[in-house]
Amino acid sequence: MSEFDDHTAVTPDGAGGYRAELSEGWVVGGGVNGGYLLAVMGRALREALPGKPDPVAVSAHYVSPSTPGPATVTVDVRREGGSVATAAVDLVQDGTTRISALATVGDLARFAERAPEVRTTAVEPTLPAPEDCTASADAPDEVRAFVRMLDRLDLRLDPAHAAWGQGEPGMTGVIAGWFRFPDGREPDALSLLTVCDVLPPVTFDLGMPGWAPTLELTVHVRAHPAPGWLKVRHETRNLAAGLFEEDCEIWDSAGRLVCQSRQLALVPRPL
Amino acid sequence: MSEFDDHTAVTPDGAGGYRAELSEGWVVGGGVNGGYLLAVMGRALREALPGKPDPVAVSAHYVSPSTPGPATVTVDVRREGGSVATAAVDLVQDGTTRISALATVGDLARFAERAPEVRTTAVEPTLPAPEDCTASADAPDEVRAFVRMLDRLDLRLDPAHAAWGQGEPGMTGVIAGWFRFPDGREPDALSLLTVCDVLPPVTFDLGMPGWAPTLELTVHVRAHPAPGWLKVRHETRNLAAGLFEEDCEIWDSAGRLVCQSRQLALVPRPL
Repeated sequence: MSEFDDHTAVTPDGAGGYRAELSEGWVVGGGVNGGYLLAVMGRALREALPGKPDPVAVSAHYVSPSTPGPATVTVDVRREGGSVATAAVDLVQDGTTRISALATVGDLARFAERAPEVRTTAVEPTLPAPEDCTASADAPDEVRAFVRMLDRLDLRLDPAHAAWGQGEPGMTGVIAGWFRFPDGREPDALSLLTVCDVLPPVTFDLGMPGWAPTLELTVHVRAHPAPGWLKVRHETRNLAAGLFEEDCEIWDSAGRLVCQSRQLALVPRPL
Repeated sequence: MSEFDDHTAVTPDGAGGYRAELSEGWVVGGGVNGGYLLAVMGRALREALPGKPDPVAVSAHYVSPSTPGPATVTVDVRREGGSVATAAVDLVQDGTTRISALATVGDLARFAERAPEVRTTAVEPTLPAPEDCTASADAPDEVRAFVRMLDRLDLRLDPAHAAWGQGEPGMTGVIAGWFRFPDGREPDALSLLTVCDVLPPVTFDLGMPGWAPTLELTVHVRAHPAPGWLKVRHETRNLAAGLFEEDCEIWDSAGRLVCQSRQLALVPRPL
């Protein structure tokens, strides 16, 4: 079993919910990566709604910081029947809600069979080859100690948007790069819930280092990704009132836009 | 009192929820406009969470079609205290959930006071003057009968993206125009929840007429809008598997990007 599948596993708790063990491996600063947590919730959705394996639209509001260790995921189905189902999903630790989410799930393979047309006017990002990018595996030890989840990722950042590492932010509000799991696990609809949240916050590229807590993250998974590297691109176009939006696109190795997400996050406090 | 404030009014129902009367005036085809319904839910949030008047991030999943008439809005607060609060909000009719939403609310004026910096790289749309646009008031009677909410709006569509009315869709996936309330009610944070959903679906511009039911709509209100006309621009960049995303930007009369929203909707069935 892949590391990601192991870390996101859930088991029925006998009371209608699901038990999860949040891995220390996904710690970033004082919390646990929000995209990883979303995939744990996605695993519970899969169990609760058989025949609708794909998280087509998931909206998560982050209520309090999660910690590694036991957690419970509850799934409250609001609509079932027809081609999609909608459910409220909550991640809870010690009686405290960590994340409240709503999810609309379905079977993207069946949708695509019924409606094969694809019209994409979004433009696939151009990136240098992975071997010419800035590899997460080369991050300094002090960064790896703070961002433990880096060991879960094979990230190759486009050097055009990675000079903040040398104190020279590009001031464009863009970060882009390649992603794959280091153990060779191929991407699927579920793992895209995590991939859309693994790059450094785009505020790094605006000269604002530091953790940018997510208030809200909505992910639209639009197709099953082809095997291989994924291209991931984050951009912000509106920073105001101490908040910024971060749009993410994920393109698969077949050149398909497979995921779009947007989050609203807090601008990092000056260090 | 303005028509919009009257139509979105809620009163405590004595059981912890709020009673609303969904207006016939917001009917579009077989349902009630989703943005109007979101504003009704926003009114209940305001009542339930005093001191946090602004719907900063609202994610709504549309579960079943609403009908004009009585409805109940329930608000279940998940976090309070600090500068934002998070709540689950449901719109229910006759015991059936119509919309399940999550909302993170706060006071945008206080946020902006504390963090006055604005960095917007998004580009304000260029539109012909309102009097040179295609006015909703001039829509044919058969359209007005089907889209009753047109009487609630003073919409002026950019003719560059409105030729689908003459059977000549631009095939760009863009619709843009000016908006104001006909009775002079000025825009505020709450009404932006509606304004982001009042233009025709962008699929009209792709040669796909017909109703495009929303599965999910997330709205980020980023600033209090200045009085006057609003510019509203919708775009889709990815239609696939019978679904399309619709991004909306709302710019105020001071040239400020005050709202960003994205929805995932079903491509209209061929007529």
